[in-house]
Amino acid sequence: MNPIEGHLPTRSPLHDILAPGGIAVVGASADPTKRGYKAMVGLIKDGYRGEIYPVNPKADMILGVKAWPSVTAIPGNPALALICTPAATVPGLIAECGRRGIKGAVILASGFAEIGEEGAALEREMMEKARAHGVRIIGPNTSGLFNLHHRINLLSLDNVKPGGVGIISQSGNMLLSLALEAQYNGNVGFSTYVGPGNQSDIGFNDYLRYLGEDENTRVATLYVEGFRDGRKFLDVAREVTAMKPVVVYKSGSTEAGQKAASSHTGALAGSYAMTVDLLKQAGVSVVQHSDEILPVAEGLGLLQKARGKRVAVISDGGGQATIASDRLAEAGLELAELSESTRQQLRDVLFPQASTVNPVDVAGSTDANPSLLATCMEIVAADDNVDSVFLVGMFGGYSIRFAESLLGDEMRGAEAMVDLSKSTTKPLVIYSLYTPIKPPALRRLHEAGLPIYASIEHAVRVLAALGERGQYLAQVERQSRERSVEPVPELTALFREAQADGRDLFEYEAKRLLRDHGIEVPLELVVRNEAELAEAAGQFGETPLAMKVVSKDILHKSDAGGVKLNVVGEAAMREARDAILASCLAYDADAEIEGILVTPMAKKGVEVILGVIRDPIFGPVLMFGLGGIFVEILEDVAFRAIPLSRRDAEEMVDQIKARKILDGVRGEKAVDKAALVDLLLKVSRIVEAYPELSELDLNPVIVNADGYAVVDARVIVERGHSDNTSADKEAH
Amino acid sequence: MNPIEGHLPTRSPLHDILAPGGIAVVGASADPTKRGYKAMVGLIKDGYRGEIYPVNPKADMILGVKAWPSVTAIPGNPALALICTPAATVPGLIAECGRRGIKGAVILASGFAEIGEEGAALEREMMEKARAHGVRIIGPNTSGLFNLHHRINLLSLDNVKPGGVGIISQSGNMLLSLALEAQYNGNVGFSTYVGPGNQSDIGFNDYLRYLGEDENTRVATLYVEGFRDGRKFLDVAREVTAMKPVVVYKSGSTEAGQKAASSHTGALAGSYAMTVDLLKQAGVSVVQHSDEILPVAEGLGLLQKARGKRVAVISDGGGQATIASDRLAEAGLELAELSESTRQQLRDVLFPQASTVNPVDVAGSTDANPSLLATCMEIVAADDNVDSVFLVGMFGGYSIRFAESLLGDEMRGAEAMVDLSKSTTKPLVIYSLYTPIKPPALRRLHEAGLPIYASIEHAVRVLAALGERGQYLAQVERQSRERSVEPVPELTALFREAQADGRDLFEYEAKRLLRDHGIEVPLELVVRNEAELAEAAGQFGETPLAMKVVSKDILHKSDAGGVKLNVVGEAAMREARDAILASCLAYDADAEIEGILVTPMAKKGVEVILGVIRDPIFGPVLMFGLGGIFVEILEDVAFRAIPLSRRDAEEMVDQIKARKILDGVRGEKAVDKAALVDLLLKVSRIVEAYPELSELDLNPVIVNADGYAVVDARVIVERGHSDNTSADKEAH
Repeated sequence: MNPIEGHLPTRSPLHDILAPGGIAVVGASADPTKRGYKAMVGLIKDGYRGEIYPVNPKADMILGVKAWPSVTAIPGNPALALICTPAATVPGLIAECGRRGIKGAVILASGFAEIGEEGAALEREMMEKARAHGVRIIGPNTSGLFNLHHRINLLSLDNVKPGGVGIISQSGNMLLSLALEAQYNGNVGFSTYVGPGNQSDIGFNDYLRYLGEDENTRVATLYVEGFRDGRKFLDVAREVTAMKPVVVYKSGSTEAGQKAASSHTGALAGSYAMTVDLLKQAGVSVVQHSDEILPVAEGLGLLQKARGKRVAVISDGGGQATIASDRLAEAGLELAELSESTRQQLRDVLFPQASTVNPVDVAGSTDANPSLLATCMEIVAADDNVDSVFLVGMFGGYSIRFAESLLGDEMRGAEAMVDLSKSTTKPLVIYSLYTPIKPPALRRLHEAGLPIYASIEHAVRVLAALGERGQYLAQVERQSRERSVEPVPELTALFREAQADGRDLFEYEAKRLLRDHGIEVPLELVVRNEAELAEAAGQFGETPLAMKVVSKDILHKSDAGGVKLNVVGEAAMREARDAILASCLAYDADAEIEGILVTPMAKKGVEVILGVIRDPIFGPVLMFGLGGIFVEILEDVAFRAIPLSRRDAEEMVDQIKARKILDGVRGEKAVDKAALVDLLLKVSRIVEAYPELSELDLNPVIVNADGYAVVDARVIVERGHSDNTSADKEAH
Repeated sequence: MNPIEGHLPTRSPLHDILAPGGIAVVGASADPTKRGYKAMVGLIKDGYRGEIYPVNPKADMILGVKAWPSVTAIPGNPALALICTPAATVPGLIAECGRRGIKGAVILASGFAEIGEEGAALEREMMEKARAHGVRIIGPNTSGLFNLHHRINLLSLDNVKPGGVGIISQSGNMLLSLALEAQYNGNVGFSTYVGPGNQSDIGFNDYLRYLGEDENTRVATLYVEGFRDGRKFLDVAREVTAMKPVVVYKSGSTEAGQKAASSHTGALAGSYAMTVDLLKQAGVSVVQHSDEILPVAEGLGLLQKARGKRVAVISDGGGQATIASDRLAEAGLELAELSESTRQQLRDVLFPQASTVNPVDVAGSTDANPSLLATCMEIVAADDNVDSVFLVGMFGGYSIRFAESLLGDEMRGAEAMVDLSKSTTKPLVIYSLYTPIKPPALRRLHEAGLPIYASIEHAVRVLAALGERGQYLAQVERQSRERSVEPVPELTALFREAQADGRDLFEYEAKRLLRDHGIEVPLELVVRNEAELAEAAGQFGETPLAMKVVSKDILHKSDAGGVKLNVVGEAAMREARDAILASCLAYDADAEIEGILVTPMAKKGVEVILGVIRDPIFGPVLMFGLGGIFVEILEDVAFRAIPLSRRDAEEMVDQIKARKILDGVRGEKAVDKAALVDLLLKVSRIVEAYPELSELDLNPVIVNADGYAVVDARVIVERGHSDNTSADKEAH
């Protein structure tokens, strides 16, 4: 669905649950080591303004709040219950919650599906009660939640402040880690945190929709071990990323990580490379290192997006300018080519020995006048060739390193940078080696909402994310809905027939499916007699042909003399046919010969592979790569969820490492990429039109400068379900 | 040279210069913004115990120290001069220094080779004076130096403390950045820092030798933009890494970075991939991100090396255990398989829901008893399957997160970890999300010399470096000197002849060179007459042969019918010869035919490439990779400096991504890697034996399960220099 046309159809029911007017704390306790104590303290200390109902049959008061012996005894109408009691008590409590009108319950206990079959049974029992009583479930096996703008802090974290970063994390430690980083290295505040735990009811897609709608959330940040309904998540992500940035760290990039994740939350990890491709397709900013999550979320939440990939570097040290240049290039960004006018303006303010070629190295010009760095940033930000500005070096520390008297000038510089950040549409990304000290000029920048990075590497990840987001949004705006195709009744009938026979499509049926939808599949005719030969000759004209014996008795066609190549014209075809028949009968006098297959000679070109799978998590996915070792050994393939946009198809072709081969090597012409993109789109439409198609494999497709030819095609038929979508749903 | 047999032959002259009894500060100043002020303050404040001689014709006293009007006026005998005056004054001052008996001069000024030809001329003039007057030069274009154990702090950094990390950095900002990181995130002290600047005299290899000898330095850490004499550096590195860890960050991983580096220090960057391979070959720990330099140096300096790659992870959060597992696998490390006894011991102390499969997840067992983490570390450290222990999670923060009463238990845990670090030979690497807060238990670990990491990613880089270092040292110990070969006079004569003719070796000469040194090059005979045919038939016996016309007039041999394949036996050879001659004369009656080339049919197998270059920075280097797209498109190649050890050759073959193809794909047998290793070693020995050989190219070599065959060989001859090594030297 096109995200620009799309809109979130209904308001998420999570708003009521996550910003409730009252909260029941089941298992509330006065014992400081218990979660039922922590939650009470968190709510009271942060000044939660709703009603708090501690539930504990053994206490009258907890932390000065009247306690109730059971959920049913609560007099008010809390929307949310926090359940701190052991797993075995949960199903019964859910039923009580439902009877009391409680809409949502947070289940902290572990001991559910993540521990195996016994726990899974308990989880099913819990869900039956939840559905029967209309209670939505957060968790189980969750660390809890907070909603700081509503003063709801069920974790009793005392180092978090309200702000724009929403977090959904399957790791409680990850939240703690982000909170500490935010406190010590950044100026980051949080909106809502939820630990989705086992996601037995509410899943990532529901939480993401909520964060998308939540006006306090500027950037949605997710730590994901596994999606339950990945297809739904992609759909929601596409809508949310059109409005605000979504940052995802997906664990399980290796087999070792996938095993660890599955013993942690019982989640299926799925193919990591595929997951990353599909998330990016939906506009998600994917972060690959855990220590980059907060820097990237902070940058995307606070800074302008970049229009493109051209970065201007301003540096007061050649070494760090060099490091920045390396990292930028590795991240696929470019050093902007500064205009002559920009360079002249830089020369006007800097020492003669300064380098005004990007990366700009001030070479001492700012030692006695650090505010000049802001001037340089202004100059390059005004250059049309520049998409983002990257300050690298010791800004903020001049007054520490050189002379205290420079403090005033540094503060003026910081002020000028703040002004620039307001007047420019380009992001200003600042790395300072003095970040750990938090000197006054850096504090000023922080207060004004400009993040400061302590690592060149992290700053470059932010620049990359800003550039990718800018480019994603630009293409989303341009993009029109790709037209779909209607299924052809005769072709649908082929699927039905195959389903009835319990088989897949025959190769000729698969090829017909493709051909009838406009895909180039070379014609193959089986010639059984003189008339068919004449007809084939008429159809192929002067095209050089390959002719091959068709006989179940002759396996090694070449050995039997059953193959003739480069045959041109009717006379030659007849001669070749006669030679094949003679030779094959000489080879095996008893061979039953059905006919001679006639088809144009195979094109010369590059072998590529297209595959379609129905992924259990993400649904129909198209895979593209070069044939042979590229797929098998190097795993150099691109994935996109079906349906593809034209841009998706173009990016797929450009994404693979082997694209250089498509661009032509050793003097070969570049292949016809437009034809390849067209093929990818047509396959995507076919998959949409025929839910009976389960898998498809075009291997190889030969592509060259003149187009492509599908040499081999295989179509696997969905068995036993006429409606594939509903079948998929049942698998969850 | 074998590092174990080797020893540093002479003591580095840098000890005198870097720990001088007196220092002249030329351009000393009372102006706080001047470097001549900073240096004075640094020396005085840190309590430098030698004599300080400020040189300034306009002052009698500077900061309470008597000043001298010129270098020659100095009464004492300082070994070192810090020259803070502009570039143009430097040559004259160097001469004065020499006359005063000063052994070394630090030149801060820029404006030398890094700015172009004019500066290069000044640098040459300076070096002439330096050589004439016996003064060694640090810089020019350097940020200076410190030697904290000798209270020499010419940078006047006030946040560094003496310790074991020696730093040589072509970036002054990098030093500042490391110093701030050390102060805020680590417990790291420094020994010597030098900025080598343009290295016009003293280069990285000299500084590295000094750090290798310096007893205060536990780990040598280098930020390198470019080496002047890379071969010498490798030789020194091999000696030093046998004694202590050497960490190198090499800039210029991309073209953008190489350009930036060259405008910064005027250094040639060279091929990054090659540099990394050669440094690793010499035992250097190469760091690829600038924010990993200090963590890795700290870890290598403080922790035990690991015997291998098997890591045991102890974690109090499943999510972070998962992240750690992913990063470990990506870094080429393994999750150790814990023994049943180890798992039982873990079960005995942990809750039943804990996972005792590595990564161990305590699943809440330590919430009320954090010292149990130390117990778990002890248990896994005792397992023979474990090479290193990785603690991941919130240790140090239990008393903050849960209850203050846990502080005592956390301190006991820290004490137990300190004890374990002393009793085990395995490294304990600790990540805590509470690192930014520096809680008491983490401070205790720091004080005891256990580094604490704030990022799982950085901690894993440390584990990888410890594992690589352990494995490097183990193989260095095992390794015996590879025997070399003597040049054969007849073959040397071939080179001389080619040199005299101003040409390279003919292909048959190149092949003879290889064949005579035991390399498998299929025999090729040119048959010109009946007798030669009979002789060839005798030599080849029943081997299937390829026969090809040899004629300068026939370019397209196949079109002319000039090729016959799979010819077996004398009769068939004669028949093929006759057919070729008849066919070729029919094709071109005037063709002059020299004879028929007879050679065994090419093996079927995998095409690999071996190349030798004489790199201007690193000297003779061997390159290995798979043929075709692997070298050309994917740049999937391995480099090693010649001479290679057997281990080098083995690692080369295993390093390339395409090794899976050598191991056999699609049911193919694995190729004979031992034969390939043997080939690499033989080529290495040939290059050693013949300095006249400039470049060598074996492309392709066909390798399969039965061995290899060199199909094509090219040898480029060193022109005009009989001694290649001396020629290389002149190029610098």
